[in-house]
Amino acid sequence: MTATPPAVSDQQREVEDQLVRKVLASFDGTPDARLKEVMQTLVRHLHDFIREVRLTEAEWQYAIDFLTAAGHITTDRRQEFVLLSDVLGTSMQTINVNQQATGDATEATVLGPFFVDGSPEIPLGGDMAFGAPGEPCWVEGTVFDTDGDPVPGARLEVWEADEDGLYDVQYEDDRLTGRAHLYTDDRGRYSFWGLTPTPYPIPHDGPVGHLLGKTGRSPMRASHLHFKATSPGLRTLVTHIFVEGDDLLESDAVFGVKHSLVKRFERQATDTPVPGGRDLAGRSWSRVRFDIVLPKDPAAEKGGSRAIRA
Amino acid sequence: MTATPPAVSDQQREVEDQLVRKVLASFDGTPDARLKEVMQTLVRHLHDFIREVRLTEAEWQYAIDFLTAAGHITTDRRQEFVLLSDVLGTSMQTINVNQQATGDATEATVLGPFFVDGSPEIPLGGDMAFGAPGEPCWVEGTVFDTDGDPVPGARLEVWEADEDGLYDVQYEDDRLTGRAHLYTDDRGRYSFWGLTPTPYPIPHDGPVGHLLGKTGRSPMRASHLHFKATSPGLRTLVTHIFVEGDDLLESDAVFGVKHSLVKRFERQATDTPVPGGRDLAGRSWSRVRFDIVLPKDPAAEKGGSRAIRA
Repeated sequence: MTATPPAVSDQQREVEDQLVRKVLASFDGTPDARLKEVMQTLVRHLHDFIREVRLTEAEWQYAIDFLTAAGHITTDRRQEFVLLSDVLGTSMQTINVNQQATGDATEATVLGPFFVDGSPEIPLGGDMAFGAPGEPCWVEGTVFDTDGDPVPGARLEVWEADEDGLYDVQYEDDRLTGRAHLYTDDRGRYSFWGLTPTPYPIPHDGPVGHLLGKTGRSPMRASHLHFKATSPGLRTLVTHIFVEGDDLLESDAVFGVKHSLVKRFERQATDTPVPGGRDLAGRSWSRVRFDIVLPKDPAAEKGGSRAIRA
Repeated sequence: MTATPPAVSDQQREVEDQLVRKVLASFDGTPDARLKEVMQTLVRHLHDFIREVRLTEAEWQYAIDFLTAAGHITTDRRQEFVLLSDVLGTSMQTINVNQQATGDATEATVLGPFFVDGSPEIPLGGDMAFGAPGEPCWVEGTVFDTDGDPVPGARLEVWEADEDGLYDVQYEDDRLTGRAHLYTDDRGRYSFWGLTPTPYPIPHDGPVGHLLGKTGRSPMRASHLHFKATSPGLRTLVTHIFVEGDDLLESDAVFGVKHSLVKRFERQATDTPVPGGRDLAGRSWSRVRFDIVLPKDPAAEKGGSRAIRA
């Protein structure tokens, strides 16, 4: 694609080119080479965008007003710029770029805004719901490295929304539900009780929700259960598993779904023996298996965190 | 330039490409064709930017924090997103795109944040300073159309900072100084007393100022005097004139300088006869000539305003 359509005169193209050169040159003196690269690449793409669409002044003003409204709705508990990045797929693309595909290593997806530190530890087979409403779900699997060896003592953080579509931190009280951490056993195995995931919308009462409405897009996220897996010397994995058959798999508002992360949640008959002999009082339940493969961490010596809020 | 450097594996490139396709497709159902075009082009460039620089998660977080800080400092009187657009040259590029070069028509530049409606009218030869401190400057010229015919009755809005680098609206009181409007005479001529322009910084105590500091850039604007020229059937012109010899012409923080807009402000000996016989009490003064050429307005029938805040 050319930077400017054919209707633009040579004289006009030169005026626009000259400005781009001037802006790029203004960053030539940036002391930090990486900052210089990032800013100059950003400038090139912003100017190409404006020139390709021949942005009108009213559209420019709309963008200014949009960013202003996003800034004003953003608080410690509501991050509209992260939502914006999410719905443009730029959060997910940043994850992709930083967690490059490696053979059959488990794929990453967005961390989301609802991870918090300080989850309670549960034993293998324990219940991470802590009373959050929803259908019980038995989750089990094994953590491997890319040589196929099990990883004992890997730490798993798990968290999810309740059946009303809300995480604990979205309630006004101080409840700590639907989140926990646990460790794999000496054969790399883990298991716990959670909830069968259900769909929910991202916050859509702000400018991002308005944009989704104007573009005919849904704010709904596909049903999912969050995982964060860490083990020394292996790459940290932040991911979800999704529910096979969910109508929203193809239209997840934040583009978090990857085919390899869609799992079969098998609904169990009420007379099926329940793992650990838990008394479910005749309620239905489901079960899912999720094996995790972690590659060696090439950045382990750099000590950088790969976590991203999205 | 390719979207991704050669170090990226085919498997990885496919993961990234697939995401871009998915995000683009999510906007396919946008009812408004123009909004669809703008959003899809924006998505392409944002993703290309992330992939080209291999944006780290820490850099992504910096961007989120930057936008959040910009949002929180922005008020009715302080617009950090406009400043950001200004220092990236995107305000000026939007002006360029909307005011395409037309033969020898006078070039446009940014409106800036300090234009306000409701300036007082002055007669030809009147004083627009209204007591604002600074060296008096006699400004004169003729407004022409692109056929070379003078334009009688053209309306000129003129405004500028005082010698302390401040516009009237930046003071806490309600002063109305350093701005006025006037009309050309029956031969297209105009003249008024203003102030010899002096340099000043854009507000640089926020995230944009911090970014300028980290990239070794100055917040200073080249000295200038603002004009807005309107006449029915002709394209509205928003521009400045700059001062020949100003050290800041090559480093104007918002990229507003165009060669054709740099004018000679001639300092006058104290015994030079003063236009209109004004009593300058022995002070030095300057004079400048600025002829303005307005093209026919191809968008006149659409009635669209070309004003942009920048």
